Order: sequence, then C-alpha cells, then structure tokens
Amino acid sequence: MALAHLCLPGYTAPMKDGIETRLYVDAPLAAGGAVPLGLDQTHYLRNVLRLGPGEGVALFNGRDGEWRAQIAAVSKKAAELAVIEQLRPQRPEPDVWLAFAPIKRARIDFTAQKATELGASLLWPVMTRHTMVDRVNTDRLRANAVEAAEQSDRLTVPEVREPAKLETLIEAWPEDRALILADETGGPPIADALAMHRDRSLTRAGFLIGPEGGFAEAELDRLRKLPFVTPVSLGARLLRADTAALAVLAIWQALVGDWTTRHD
Amino acid sequence: MALAHLCLPGYTAPMKDGIETRLYVDAPLAAGGAVPLGLDQTHYLRNVLRLGPGEGVALFNGRDGEWRAQIAAVSKKAAELAVIEQLRPQRPEPDVWLAFAPIKRARIDFTAQKATELGASLLWPVMTRHTMVDRVNTDRLRANAVEAAEQSDRLTVPEVREPAKLETLIEAWPEDRALILADETGGPPIADALAMHRDRSLTRAGFLIGPEGGFAEAELDRLRKLPFVTPVSLGARLLRADTAALAVLAIWQALVGDWTTRHD
Repeated sequence: MALAHLCLPGYTAPMKDGIETRLYVDAPLAAGGAVPLGLDQTHYLRNVLRLGPGEGVALFNGRDGEWRAQIAAVSKKAAELAVIEQLRPQRPEPDVWLAFAPIKRARIDFTAQKATELGASLLWPVMTRHTMVDRVNTDRLRANAVEAAEQSDRLTVPEVREPAKLETLIEAWPEDRALILADETGGPPIADALAMHRDRSLTRAGFLIGPEGGFAEAELDRLRKLPFVTPVSLGARLLRADTAALAVLAIWQALVGDWTTRHD
Repeated sequence: MALAHLCLPGYTAPMKDGIETRLYVDAPLAAGGAVPLGLDQTHYLRNVLRLGPGEGVALFNGRDGEWRAQIAAVSKKAAELAVIEQLRPQRPEPDVWLAFAPIKRARIDFTAQKATELGASLLWPVMTRHTMVDRVNTDRLRANAVEAAEQSDRLTVPEVREPAKLETLIEAWPEDRALILADETGGPPIADALAMHRDRSLTRAGFLIGPEGGFAEAELDRLRKLPFVTPVSLGARLLRADTAALAVLAIWQALVGDWTTRHD
C-alpha cells in the first residue's frame, strides 16, 4: 500500500462501535491475522490521527468484509494491526461505472471522491476530441477514491482505470453493459430512459460524461450508433462536467441502484 | 450590483449567437435601454475578459428574459451596455429550495455553484445543533450563485437567504411546500417518496440537508412530526453534506422538475 493519505478536510469520521478510523488495506483479513501498514498509512495513523498501541481501527480490503482491528505496534516507519473480529460481511454492491473526460485538478479530485461516495464501481478517464487535460494522475485519483471509501463506510474501493481514448473505451466496453451517454445535444429525459430499460439489465450500467467543451459531432454520431448506448438528457441548463457526473450517479442509485431499498 | 466576480476556473462559456459572455444585472432590460456596470463587473469585462466597445454580451436580470447587448463605452471604473434585442423570453423555472447546514468554505462555495446549476430556486443556510460553522458569508454565497447562473445559461439567480436557526426555518416554512428531509437514520427510498407524492404538489418542494455530524435526535423528532415534512433515505453509504445536497436536487429534477421533459 503506497497510497498517500490526502487528509481531505471536512469529513466526519463515522462512529462505529467506538471506532472512528477506517482503513483500506490490501492484506487478507481474518480473525487472528496481522496486517502490516506501509509508510504512508503509518504516518497517517501516528501523526495525523495520533493513535497508538491498543487503539481500535476498522479495516476493509474489498473482499473480506469489515474487521475490527487493534494497533499492535507502531514505530516511525511501520505499524502492525491485529485483526480481531468481523464487523460486517462482504456484500454485493451496485455495479455502475463512470467514464469521464478528465477535468482540472481540484475538480477531478472532487469527482473521484463524490463518485466513490455515490457508489461508482469503476472510474475511467476517457480522452475525447475536446478534452483539454492531457495527463491524468491515476495514483491521485485512486488515493481520493480510497479516502472517500474509508469515510463513506463502503466495503470496496472503485477500480481506477488508466486513461483511454474514446475509441479504445468503445472497443473495450462490454456489450452486456448499458452505456448511458449524457448527451448535451438532447435526448430522452434520464428518468424515462432508466425506467424504459429497467427490464433489460440496467443494473450493469456505465455513464459516459464528456468534456466541458462537449463531444465532437463525429463522436456523438459514433456513440449513438452503438447498440449498447442510450443517450439521455439532463435538462436545458448547462452543467459542468463534474456536476453531470454526480447527477447521473445519484439518479441511477435512486432509480436502479441500492437507494431503491429501504435503509433504517 | 456590487458582486465581486470570482472568476471560477474551468467553466466553458456557452457559445450563443457568437456571444460568449453572460452577465447578471439588476437593471430592467428592454430594447434601446442602457445598462451601467459597477466597478466589479467593469473590471471583469475589461481586465479579465478583455472586451472593449462594440463587443457583444448577453444580459439577464431574472425578470425580463435574456438580451443581446453591446458594450457602448468602457473606462477603468465604469462601463455602459446598449441593450439590442431579446434572445430568450423569461420562462417559469423549477421551484425547489435547498436548505442546508453550512459547511466549510470551499465546499459551501461548491454547494452554491452546483445547486445553482441544478436549478435550485432558493439557498438557505440553516443552523442546527451539530452545525460546526457559525458564520456564513452570504455575499460570497450569492456571488457563487450569480457566476454559476451566468455560466449555466439560467435566466434567474437563486435567492440567497440569511442563515436561520432550524426552529426559525420551521416556523417560516410555507405549509404548502413539501419539506423533504434527507434523513441519515433511514426512511423510504427517495424515488418512492417522490413518486408517491407526485399527485400532491411536489413541484413546490424544498430539501433540508443536515450537517456532517447529522441532526440531533430531538431535531429529527421535531421535523418528522410536521405535516409538511417527508423524510427520505439516500442509501446506506455515508454521504458528505455537499454530496447529499447535489444528489437530492439532481433526483428531484429527474423525477419532478424540468429534466422530465425532452430537450433537443
């Protein structure tokens, strides 16, 4: 785990069984196991959270559910956690992808954080004709996703893919996954499109959000001809790319995903 | 108009009839009229956009639609615009309020911008038991809303109210406006609640989003007993307050507001 902790301001750590800290780790989690922490997570635990031996931490790795652990040892450069008992089993999560033309730094961080809170299972930067950003720091995207997963009580971290050209994304897109295109030139209302397709498997879906300058006409033509693409409209106001990304994920969760069942 | 222009990075100005700049003004707008600009907007026009006499600007004031105007004169401290012709008539807009416990600076700016893009008609900071921020710069909130309205092609700017205590908000809340409470302790799924109430007038609605620490139990009890309050759930993951605010507005627009009609 060489993920830098970004120490995003403003998160309120969840209180769960008196444990206020959740950490995402790579190691397998099972009762009696020991989990070593690398330099960055040790620094976070020791110098940011000021936790020491005996204190509790919740761990998850995206595979084994959530576990209560205790700090067994901590030095300047390394720490070891003792895994005690399972708090929550791993459960299936919504399967919705977000492919998006990358935007500038603060707002791409923000998109990764919010998309993670909103339950995206995969984040995929896509380079389109009018995309103004030509480099994407995927390590940073992933660090944002990890921190948001830790803070939002998720049991997984979304997969972060390396940036792809639009044509590469189209070729790699699974045909049984609906690609829902936020089409700024118009289309059926998003709620109608999602309701219409609820019979088909919209539970495996992905959204594609263009750059601030919009898709090129040729790109829209190419996309609309694909059998797995559904264009949708998000109203007449101009939305920034990050707003559109969060809007579609929230609407999908409300109509198709795991916000459709009662949570008490 | 003494609104500072924040020059938010990353917006792509809309291209409309060759006009790339939209300005919100207070003055009445009619063909042949003249609109004076104050110091801040003059600075923005002259030094940020580097526009000079003869160049076109679109104007709106929230009452008279959108107008094409031309820069008639510009000096260091003032400018005058000549109003030429109407581009769009004023139209009714969705009527959805956002009441929210204020959060820290960058994220409250962000909430005002995104809520404006998503069509909120009123922004109202509300002080609850666990709200950690005790001062709100409503001028700054309003400047963010103005800039987002200019960039998102809106014909109005949301009203920004002065912060109120929760009890004051409850007393001032119109009884014929549904208050939809984002209830982190659970409740019916938001899509079900919105669908159920579609017969009643959910077209006049407002959302209430609590602080990062959540509402106090007594506050939730008080709210749930009010006849115009509908609690809704936003799933099991923990959402940051700004994420929740944007999510509910997007879902309302998709199910009740003006994203329900086709836009081409």
